[in-house]
Amino acid sequence: MADVLMVGSVALDSVETPFGKVERALGGAATYAGTAASFFAPVKVVGVVGEDFAPEHLAFLQQRGVDTRGIETVAGGKTFHWAGRYSADMNSRDTLATELNVFETFQPVLPAAHRAVPYVFLANIHPALQLDVLDQMSAPRFVGLDTMNLWINIELATLLQVVARVQLLLLNDEEARLLTGESNLVAAGRKLLTMGPRAAIVKKGEHGALMFTVDGLFAAPGFPLEVVKDPTGCGDCFAGGLMGCLAAADATDDDALRRAVVYGSVVASFNAQDFSLDRLRTLTRAEVDERFAAFADLVRFA
Amino acid sequence: MADVLMVGSVALDSVETPFGKVERALGGAATYAGTAASFFAPVKVVGVVGEDFAPEHLAFLQQRGVDTRGIETVAGGKTFHWAGRYSADMNSRDTLATELNVFETFQPVLPAAHRAVPYVFLANIHPALQLDVLDQMSAPRFVGLDTMNLWINIELATLLQVVARVQLLLLNDEEARLLTGESNLVAAGRKLLTMGPRAAIVKKGEHGALMFTVDGLFAAPGFPLEVVKDPTGCGDCFAGGLMGCLAAADATDDDALRRAVVYGSVVASFNAQDFSLDRLRTLTRAEVDERFAAFADLVRFA
Repeated sequence: MADVLMVGSVALDSVETPFGKVERALGGAATYAGTAASFFAPVKVVGVVGEDFAPEHLAFLQQRGVDTRGIETVAGGKTFHWAGRYSADMNSRDTLATELNVFETFQPVLPAAHRAVPYVFLANIHPALQLDVLDQMSAPRFVGLDTMNLWINIELATLLQVVARVQLLLLNDEEARLLTGESNLVAAGRKLLTMGPRAAIVKKGEHGALMFTVDGLFAAPGFPLEVVKDPTGCGDCFAGGLMGCLAAADATDDDALRRAVVYGSVVASFNAQDFSLDRLRTLTRAEVDERFAAFADLVRFA
Repeated sequence: MADVLMVGSVALDSVETPFGKVERALGGAATYAGTAASFFAPVKVVGVVGEDFAPEHLAFLQQRGVDTRGIETVAGGKTFHWAGRYSADMNSRDTLATELNVFETFQPVLPAAHRAVPYVFLANIHPALQLDVLDQMSAPRFVGLDTMNLWINIELATLLQVVARVQLLLLNDEEARLLTGESNLVAAGRKLLTMGPRAAIVKKGEHGALMFTVDGLFAAPGFPLEVVKDPTGCGDCFAGGLMGCLAAADATDDDALRRAVVYGSVVASFNAQDFSLDRLRTLTRAEVDERFAAFADLVRFA
């Protein structure tokens, strides 16, 4: 059992879907990923918040066993706030507000205890900051990387430097096409493997994920859900669950990666069933394992 | 080993994709489905063509072991002609021409030898004709049904009568949502099961298929392809391969259905790799079985 470090946004999200709305609820990529990973392995989160970040949010993470010493509180500052509204069919969303606040000048500084953590997830932040995090690490064994279309468009050279230094790249289908210039996802996935990582995962939302490795291709369907209340954070829960699962096994061979993709999908599927991280607040490891078994039954054929 | 009957269009298609174009090439739902099924079981096709239908098209089907006695040739008539052009990313297509010709007055009449066939696929035609076919059958054991948004919109009552009399309903995601009024596919799939069939398959194109039965849910990813030249007929190849596989095993339990879904996906994936039915012309059963094994490896995890 190794531990895993998550670096990225900690946020307050205001989200509206056809199933309801929440105002300034707990959110952020590192929060989702860290909480998801905490079902499997010890987690450290590095991020920044403002004085408006309620103590119960930190308490929630700590109660999940998350080491929050790397979450800096900026005196007089306000926490990153994102507001969005999902369409009636939940297939698209409009961003209503993005207030970076203290996240705008976020400079991740890793406490000494964090620098030797073997498993690392670099959630979506400026690639220069992702590089800076890697430079602070002593010997990361397996680094997972997320990014977004913005950095592919305006910081490509820096992003490619980060990509070359990580073991796993996680992109959604649109980002994979943009980064590779390939409209076909299989062609795109294979091209991602030439950029440095030894594994590339193309996330397709409700349609699941495709993982490319030198050993071959793995396809995981999305876990079919009858009610999706709020998909916010599902990509980060997927990545976090996956990284936590790898750290727990301290293994990154093809079988370990496939298993981790499914565990990541399982945690992401739970996350979609309620707003903010609310479903994860009551989720148990037994429920996670039960859905892992259901996932195996879902794809079983002879 | 039972045999399988396919009733539907036999056509000449003019198709343009970013990878090339064909003019009046062999097409039609019953043609694709019948050819796909012929890799597994003896097939009979019922359809109608005009005098412009080249003898080599019938010869091709016969060479695949297809009984073509149910394909009527209308003297002086012209074959159903469809023309379409796919978008650059292959995710949408425009219909350039639909000339129904002899298909407009198609009244399927089953030869005596066809009436006792146990496995039947009713490809997309007017639901009143589908009902008429069922009325001509002595005791169909397992009927698969396809339809389209047009009939859901303008012939719903008749369509629901057909749906109530079949064992398997195959729809794409858009049709499933339209027929059930449910935007969530799991909710839609479960609702389809209340309409009569004991299995419902929601086709998601490159994203695979979801099968709903009383025994549970089966998710098959699409087989990832690096080159898709022409997806025309893939849905019918999927249905045909599936029905042929069931007929070959003469079994329709959940395990048989899951296996058939994968075999259907395999044949559909080959079909997409070339124009018209061209890839199926050289395809061997050994290649089909090899990709079936690759499919198992694609979704394998422990």
